Amino acid sequence: MPGNRVLTPIALADVQIEDRFWAPRLEAVRRVTLAEEYEQLRETGRIEALRLNWRPGQPNPPHIFWDSDVAKWVEAASYSLITQPDAQLAAKLDEVVDLFAAAQQPDGYLNSHFTVVEPEKRWTNLRDWHELYCAGHIIEAAVAHHQATGSDKLLRVACRYADYISTVFGRELGKKRGYCGHEEIELALVRLYRATGERRYLDLARYFVDERGRQPHYFDQEARARGEDPAGDWHGHDYRYNQSHLPVREQTSAEGHAVRAMYLYCAMADLAGETGDASLLEACRRLWQSVSGRRMYITGGIGSSARGERFTWDYDLPNASAYAETCAAIGLVFWAHRLLQVEPKAEYADVMERALYNGVLSGISLDGSRFFYVNPLEVDYQAYLHEMDLYGTSSIVPQRQGWFSCACCPPNIARLLTSLGSYAWSAGDDRILVHLYLGGRMHASLAGGKVSIAVESRYPWEGRVRLEVTPEVRNHFTLGLRLPGWCRRPELLLNGRQVDLAPLTRDGYCYLERDWQAGDLLELELPMAVERMVAYPEVTADVGRVALQRGPLVYCFEQADNGPRLQQLRLPGDAGLAAAYEPSLLGGVVAIEGQALRNDPAAWHGGLYCRQPATEVPVPVRAIPYYAWANREPGDMLVWIRGEA
Amino acid sequence: MPGNRVLTPIALADVQIEDRFWAPRLEAVRRVTLAEEYEQLRETGRIEALRLNWRPGQPNPPHIFWDSDVAKWVEAASYSLITQPDAQLAAKLDEVVDLFAAAQQPDGYLNSHFTVVEPEKRWTNLRDWHELYCAGHIIEAAVAHHQATGSDKLLRVACRYADYISTVFGRELGKKRGYCGHEEIELALVRLYRATGERRYLDLARYFVDERGRQPHYFDQEARARGEDPAGDWHGHDYRYNQSHLPVREQTSAEGHAVRAMYLYCAMADLAGETGDASLLEACRRLWQSVSGRRMYITGGIGSSARGERFTWDYDLPNASAYAETCAAIGLVFWAHRLLQVEPKAEYADVMERALYNGVLSGISLDGSRFFYVNPLEVDYQAYLHEMDLYGTSSIVPQRQGWFSCACCPPNIARLLTSLGSYAWSAGDDRILVHLYLGGRMHASLAGGKVSIAVESRYPWEGRVRLEVTPEVRNHFTLGLRLPGWCRRPELLLNGRQVDLAPLTRDGYCYLERDWQAGDLLELELPMAVERMVAYPEVTADVGRVALQRGPLVYCFEQADNGPRLQQLRLPGDAGLAAAYEPSLLGGVVAIEGQALRNDPAAWHGGLYCRQPATEVPVPVRAIPYYAWANREPGDMLVWIRGEA
Repeated sequence: MPGNRVLTPIALADVQIEDRFWAPRLEAVRRVTLAEEYEQLRETGRIEALRLNWRPGQPNPPHIFWDSDVAKWVEAASYSLITQPDAQLAAKLDEVVDLFAAAQQPDGYLNSHFTVVEPEKRWTNLRDWHELYCAGHIIEAAVAHHQATGSDKLLRVACRYADYISTVFGRELGKKRGYCGHEEIELALVRLYRATGERRYLDLARYFVDERGRQPHYFDQEARARGEDPAGDWHGHDYRYNQSHLPVREQTSAEGHAVRAMYLYCAMADLAGETGDASLLEACRRLWQSVSGRRMYITGGIGSSARGERFTWDYDLPNASAYAETCAAIGLVFWAHRLLQVEPKAEYADVMERALYNGVLSGISLDGSRFFYVNPLEVDYQAYLHEMDLYGTSSIVPQRQGWFSCACCPPNIARLLTSLGSYAWSAGDDRILVHLYLGGRMHASLAGGKVSIAVESRYPWEGRVRLEVTPEVRNHFTLGLRLPGWCRRPELLLNGRQVDLAPLTRDGYCYLERDWQAGDLLELELPMAVERMVAYPEVTADVGRVALQRGPLVYCFEQADNGPRLQQLRLPGDAGLAAAYEPSLLGGVVAIEGQALRNDPAAWHGGLYCRQPATEVPVPVRAIPYYAWANREPGDMLVWIRGEA
Repeated sequence: MPGNRVLTPIALADVQIEDRFWAPRLEAVRRVTLAEEYEQLRETGRIEALRLNWRPGQPNPPHIFWDSDVAKWVEAASYSLITQPDAQLAAKLDEVVDLFAAAQQPDGYLNSHFTVVEPEKRWTNLRDWHELYCAGHIIEAAVAHHQATGSDKLLRVACRYADYISTVFGRELGKKRGYCGHEEIELALVRLYRATGERRYLDLARYFVDERGRQPHYFDQEARARGEDPAGDWHGHDYRYNQSHLPVREQTSAEGHAVRAMYLYCAMADLAGETGDASLLEACRRLWQSVSGRRMYITGGIGSSARGERFTWDYDLPNASAYAETCAAIGLVFWAHRLLQVEPKAEYADVMERALYNGVLSGISLDGSRFFYVNPLEVDYQAYLHEMDLYGTSSIVPQRQGWFSCACCPPNIARLLTSLGSYAWSAGDDRILVHLYLGGRMHASLAGGKVSIAVESRYPWEGRVRLEVTPEVRNHFTLGLRLPGWCRRPELLLNGRQVDLAPLTRDGYCYLERDWQAGDLLELELPMAVERMVAYPEVTADVGRVALQRGPLVYCFEQADNGPRLQQLRLPGDAGLAAAYEPSLLGGVVAIEGQALRNDPAAWHGGLYCRQPATEVPVPVRAIPYYAWANREPGDMLVWIRGEA
């Protein structure tokens, strides 16, 4: 059911990942992350909450967004079972799914908080209270569970809930013309439509997206109904916070809470794809320019401010105070991936890859047990220690944590990584596109028959990718290979013969249309140089600085390799930098080594301030991939180092 | 009554300032600041509060530190009357002094808040409630009022209050072994001792200083008496906040609230001077190294963090978030000035001058009507506008304000500037020292007779200072001239003959011992070069940056001269810089002009991040004295500019 979409992602079940980079990551998620998250969900009462046993006066009441945490775990566990059977995990999943099913109310409503804690407040504060957001995550979980198990137990729950929601919300007389302050239901309903073929879910998604930001403003009316002044101050300050400041087609800059924005934009891309709505696609393109061109860290992190976890203004990308929530980078992957299906352009794939390998992957420790909620690009560890000592608190988070009271990120990264395979490939009737070079094998069914493609590569450490195409029968179709934006001079051999890429390349994909037969071999060479990246000068935080990038990976300097006070370092324009694979470092990474200069306190002869020029001494430096930082002893970290390109 | 002090400041009444730099500043304070502050004190209810008419249930109850704001105004107004008669001001002063006198309780207690709002809580929370702090400011006001008017009306009030306080606090049985969480009473009692000759006030000051930080800790006991857990969290977090973490002689680093620290250290210096207590002087020297060597901005601003308005840790001197409260820089002037009387060393005078001409003077607008509470070294004005738009609040303060709910700074800067003359000169039996080169005339009485010295200079714009010495009779004494630390090669002519400075110079003062006679002429030449100052490399905020300084003045770049986004500017090591007096700029300043490079967005051809080196284009730049910033249209400001020395 691709609707007007150009492409459909190859399903997770049809992609096997056998990849030296990803295999240990995914194994850690399966073995450690999913198990520990389940324990956290249990220990914090989130699973128990679904039993609806809480009664007024008891401690630990179910929180308004707890259901979403559990639902994201269900989604992640389901994906994991698609690629890796696991009886223990399946048993836990069954238990939780049963709890969700049992918690559903006779009218279809399903929310642990508003069923037992504040039942009288159901649907009275869509602006702040995440009810439809939680519903959306239950729906996504149901679709994934159905995909994974074939069981429709949770899917039926989701459909009943969605059907109930459609009796409450809409433009018809007697319904609330509302929508959720935290978007999610919209994209979830599109997924439910795709899973069930039921057009009404797509229509409801479209209603939620189209209604958003219209006047008279629903959140105004709703506030008045609660006896509140809609003009009174609230934590979001104004409706930009939840992207309801304007109808979505009139929005031109990415505003407000970054995760909410991403989930809305995902639904807009989905609806543009499903309905062919050109005005929605145009809005997506404008918002894409706003995010990727003016409001995104080099790591793919977005939402630079902790205040409101939000987008701020163009080029406001401070490094030490960067918020760059893991969930927001995940949302950016979701959105880029959806846009790729509507219009396959390298700009989407490049950002998707940038966010995935950097700002998303930094959110989880190498062993899968600990998480970053915020992903700064600079850490002063001494400042952290001093602040803890002086104030007992610090906004600096130099190490990953096992869990959060607001626990959105851990299960979110789990559901992305367990479904990673589905981000790599897309197919249309007569074509296959590869977006991410993951080692392994993919199976697709085209109009002309089945095709499988085996991929071998040491990506992202080396740029050589070997693709062996095996159609079941000789088959005429187009294979589109992404030529990553980070690569200056890609080369391609088809069955040993050099391909002239330029005439075949459109929007960053090289399209090979031919009769394919078993044994056809593509050898893609993507030379990976160490690049000194420079930011547009309006990003004043990065002026006079460079960030190292090699292939899709952004690098950083850590105290463990370079000592403290990384701001003393400078990388002159002529400093040689060499990349080498170090198998025993951080699970095996390509590190970048070279010689920098350090502004040397030992050579200082003045007081605190004096007229002498700084004395710089040469020092060896080592940079590691940003995703791998904070996996050794805690210390300073820096992405943008003083220096020249 | 100089006690063991080496020197005594020449009294304000004996110094006439006729100075092209200071005259308009002091005139603005007299004509505008004192009048507007009186209006603010009246309009906000602070003066009315002294009538003790407030009753429970009424709005606007007297706040615990309101009395101190009024008292500081009394002090400032008194100083102003010493140098400039003003009948209107004298009438207002009389009114306020009468109110203070009438508000004194039969037992001597005097505090508008604790008399009418919470009388049952008198002396129950010294840690947090500023009672003795307010008492100290009333005492300082009384001493100044007595000096100015000869009336002992307020001085008698102060003595009665101090005598009452000595019945409450002390080591004797039945007294509280307490001291104030906000120091001030200690230095005030030393002043009261000096004004009255009553040794008991010095002893009480010494008690408060000596008792501080001893175990068992008074604030612990006091908290328990209130039924609170002393280990529970409070806004200061721990006793470093109010410098009671250790007995004062064991303190080695400047900790906690910067204003409180300065006021304590003032009292320590005073007591060391009065009593010859070597251990107190040693503690002062250690703390001085901590402040001036490791925890002070180049502007003389101290207390780098808004959290707790406090000292943080060595070399933590961020520029944009610098707190650097005006009152703290004022306190640093107070402390340096007191240490100078105990041991005349240029390091104290250099810092006193640095703070005065930069971090203090920046606290008041050129017209005397508006004030900075915080004094950052970098302002991103666009960020301010965006934050106001997004959140309705911003921690960035790009412009001075007319008043503050916590109004300590405006009257504090008024009392410093109205008493400026007393900071310039000191005298001993047989010597006179000049610390600050203020144009005008000074009269001193030495053992050998009276001496007056006339000073002509265009300091701080030009480094030539002409001093004409006029003893009443031929007189053998020593004249010590400060050779400022900022000056590389000072030169001196005595009656037209070059003086060889080196053999005469000790601790930054050139001592000329001779028989002086009328008409003796000193011509001091202090060449003022534009200096590119560099910070010790552990100040990571300033690495790769320079600050311009000329004479005692630190410079800054403002958007009004240089356009926005000052971080795009770089001052290469070979950029020529020229200083020129501009009479129509900011009331007449020496501006520094030159050519810098700007990282040019217009020359950019990539996206948000790309591999191209930055394109720098030459641009003219102009720097103005830091004290004068924010007196034109609001905009960006920067002290530490990227560049090389």
